Amino acid sequence: MTSEIRKRAQEVMARCGKLATFSEDSFSKSQGSTRRTFLSPPMHDCHREIAHWMEPLGIPVRVDAAGNLRGSYAAAQSGAPTLLVGSHLDTVPNAGAYDGVLGVMLAVGLLEALGGRRLPFGIEIIGFSEEEGVRFGVPFIGSRALVGLLDEELLNVQDAQGISVRKAIQEFGLNPAEIPQACLSHTGENTECFGYIEFHIEQGPVLEALGQPLAVVESIAGQSRLEFTFLGRSNHAGTTPMHLRYDAIAAAAEWIAAVERLARSAAGLVATVGRIEAKPGATNVIAGETRVSLDVRHGSDQIRIQAVQDLVQQAQEIAKRRGLTARWNTLLEQRAVAMDPFLIAEIEHAIEKTGGVAHRMVSGAGHDAMILAEKVPVAMIFLRTPGGISHDPAESVVVEDVEKAMECGLHLLDQLAALSAAALVRASSSIIRERE
Amino acid sequence: MTSEIRKRAQEVMARCGKLATFSEDSFSKSQGSTRRTFLSPPMHDCHREIAHWMEPLGIPVRVDAAGNLRGSYAAAQSGAPTLLVGSHLDTVPNAGAYDGVLGVMLAVGLLEALGGRRLPFGIEIIGFSEEEGVRFGVPFIGSRALVGLLDEELLNVQDAQGISVRKAIQEFGLNPAEIPQACLSHTGENTECFGYIEFHIEQGPVLEALGQPLAVVESIAGQSRLEFTFLGRSNHAGTTPMHLRYDAIAAAAEWIAAVERLARSAAGLVATVGRIEAKPGATNVIAGETRVSLDVRHGSDQIRIQAVQDLVQQAQEIAKRRGLTARWNTLLEQRAVAMDPFLIAEIEHAIEKTGGVAHRMVSGAGHDAMILAEKVPVAMIFLRTPGGISHDPAESVVVEDVEKAMECGLHLLDQLAALSAAALVRASSSIIRERE
Repeated sequence: MTSEIRKRAQEVMARCGKLATFSEDSFSKSQGSTRRTFLSPPMHDCHREIAHWMEPLGIPVRVDAAGNLRGSYAAAQSGAPTLLVGSHLDTVPNAGAYDGVLGVMLAVGLLEALGGRRLPFGIEIIGFSEEEGVRFGVPFIGSRALVGLLDEELLNVQDAQGISVRKAIQEFGLNPAEIPQACLSHTGENTECFGYIEFHIEQGPVLEALGQPLAVVESIAGQSRLEFTFLGRSNHAGTTPMHLRYDAIAAAAEWIAAVERLARSAAGLVATVGRIEAKPGATNVIAGETRVSLDVRHGSDQIRIQAVQDLVQQAQEIAKRRGLTARWNTLLEQRAVAMDPFLIAEIEHAIEKTGGVAHRMVSGAGHDAMILAEKVPVAMIFLRTPGGISHDPAESVVVEDVEKAMECGLHLLDQLAALSAAALVRASSSIIRERE
Repeated sequence: MTSEIRKRAQEVMARCGKLATFSEDSFSKSQGSTRRTFLSPPMHDCHREIAHWMEPLGIPVRVDAAGNLRGSYAAAQSGAPTLLVGSHLDTVPNAGAYDGVLGVMLAVGLLEALGGRRLPFGIEIIGFSEEEGVRFGVPFIGSRALVGLLDEELLNVQDAQGISVRKAIQEFGLNPAEIPQACLSHTGENTECFGYIEFHIEQGPVLEALGQPLAVVESIAGQSRLEFTFLGRSNHAGTTPMHLRYDAIAAAAEWIAAVERLARSAAGLVATVGRIEAKPGATNVIAGETRVSLDVRHGSDQIRIQAVQDLVQQAQEIAKRRGLTARWNTLLEQRAVAMDPFLIAEIEHAIEKTGGVAHRMVSGAGHDAMILAEKVPVAMIFLRTPGGISHDPAESVVVEDVEKAMECGLHLLDQLAALSAAALVRASSSIIRERE
């Protein structure tokens, strides 16, 4: 048994490697860098290849009008509810082989491992067309279609070449008028969808530091993005004594130290200044203006919002004490999204059955699950990411961890199969009601 | 008497305003911005206009082969030593009317105020052709010629258009072969030069803060310029917990705070981080690399060098504690230049005679006097600069301060005239010996 799962894990990784060769940039084996943005030509190759792997399982495969690859594995009986399993197929530029793609290949691998066994629920495999937001600057275009959020406004957004989302869909050979049929409420004979499960690489260093292969995601962090400007007075670096300066870099530096101090003081809080620009930016001139970005994330919206308020106040205090002014504006406010407690508990149980510790963690990055949570109970399983390296050709996974993910997935399917269809729908419905 | 000096001060300022109209950029009265770089066409207009003002005083005017305007006011007797008085006539881009030019116009005004009276020493007025280093990236080209430092290497330096210094001299109608005759050792019948006096706007906020119109410069600060690079690890701002980061912006910020703290701890020390660049420079990515500039100045070379050593050590310590590495390289090391004690004392005496306090200060900026100090005893007098604003069309002086500068200059000439020619030369020679 173990040996067979190991082989399946190796196959999952080999398929990720194969799909990585479908790239807008010329792919070289030594580099292994992929670029496959929303509905770019290599996405056709990607769909064709995955369909080849799914069709022997008796799974009819289609591409919906938003470009999502969808394959339905029928339930033992008609009228049964559906479990969605998947991730995204697009990549960032200079990507590795596993971000997104691994989640889809694990879903295919799990169905293969069932060996034709039908469950009391259907399984729909989804390979989302767009998660990274590279081509149109808007992420999650694929999953938005499933919850009815791929609207006229988004269809009109243009890429750098002036091609709209609508036009891109047409150029790929799809019909934008059929987008409503991509919606979860229109998935055909499966009347009810009781959950969405996504395997994804962690893209961070936490599991590696813990020495664990898998974690269950309990929520996706809320996020605030702001820009701060410190306005001082540009002056001669030689002729202006220290006590007569209004140095915008020195003020920003004091505040950056405060950002780091605050983030370190609260468990799970991350706060980052990743961008800094100073004017005029000459060695012998005191900076009169410094702009800095701020990115704050936490699983609790209250903690995040309080942190942002504290940092705004500290920026004001630092500026005032130094005779400068501080301005700021908010670029993004995104609430935290909780994963479904029922699915979390089932995943924890499945991880424990693999012999692992069911570590719960907050995802600092956004995922399609966050969008689907609008309509469906969702949950995610993270796989350890060596070196925390992602969005880079050096991105990797180890076969033992992929094997553990396969085992976890099979335990999870068995656990869910042990419940009646009615119980599954009740569990998910009760969650939806609770949330409303 | 006072009223006449006020009129002369007004005339000095009006002449600065007139010269500001000779600009490479089209000059608009409302903006008042000037650009007149080394041997640019408007420098011809500038020379012609100044010659008009000097010739009625019986001063023969010439332009030496380095483009310096030079006018010799003969002594009462031949064979007497010479005092040089002047400043520079070139400007930065987007300049105001007073930086450099005011020192030349005050020199002309002082000779006018003598009303034809001859002194026991000659006075040579110098309007240096180049101090700012704008056109060729090398400052002090004019004054270098007077001390024999306008050599072959410098003559071959090219501007952005590929025109060499040599070619620029030829295009202005001058002969590079005559550069040796621009040297102080070849100034014709005046056998010995006993000093150089330069009036210049402070270009800083110190005199304004002290409520004083004038200061005597006791030295020109030494200067160190370095570049530091903090190398950490670029990573995802959402998925990387605070304790697993190697954030190059946070490390640089901690060090910038240390730079400011150190500079504030030592009187007269200035240290500036004026340039900061972080990579990759995205809101949601932890910076993996940050480059910062460092500019350190002080009148004492020992204090400056110790400060730089301390800051290098702190950069290493901060980087090491955070798991980063710090690199640095030195771009410039310039020793402090002392002004001449005899001339400083005479200027202090002259300022006190005007009713002012003779404040001594260190010039944080470089000046032609620094170059001439290689061969001649030098001293400088600073005029208060409203708002500390310079290198900007808003650069200004107040007429009362220009009047005080005129009074100070006349007292100084009277004091020097009271000494015998032999005493003047002895004073300066003894200084030169002391320095060697």
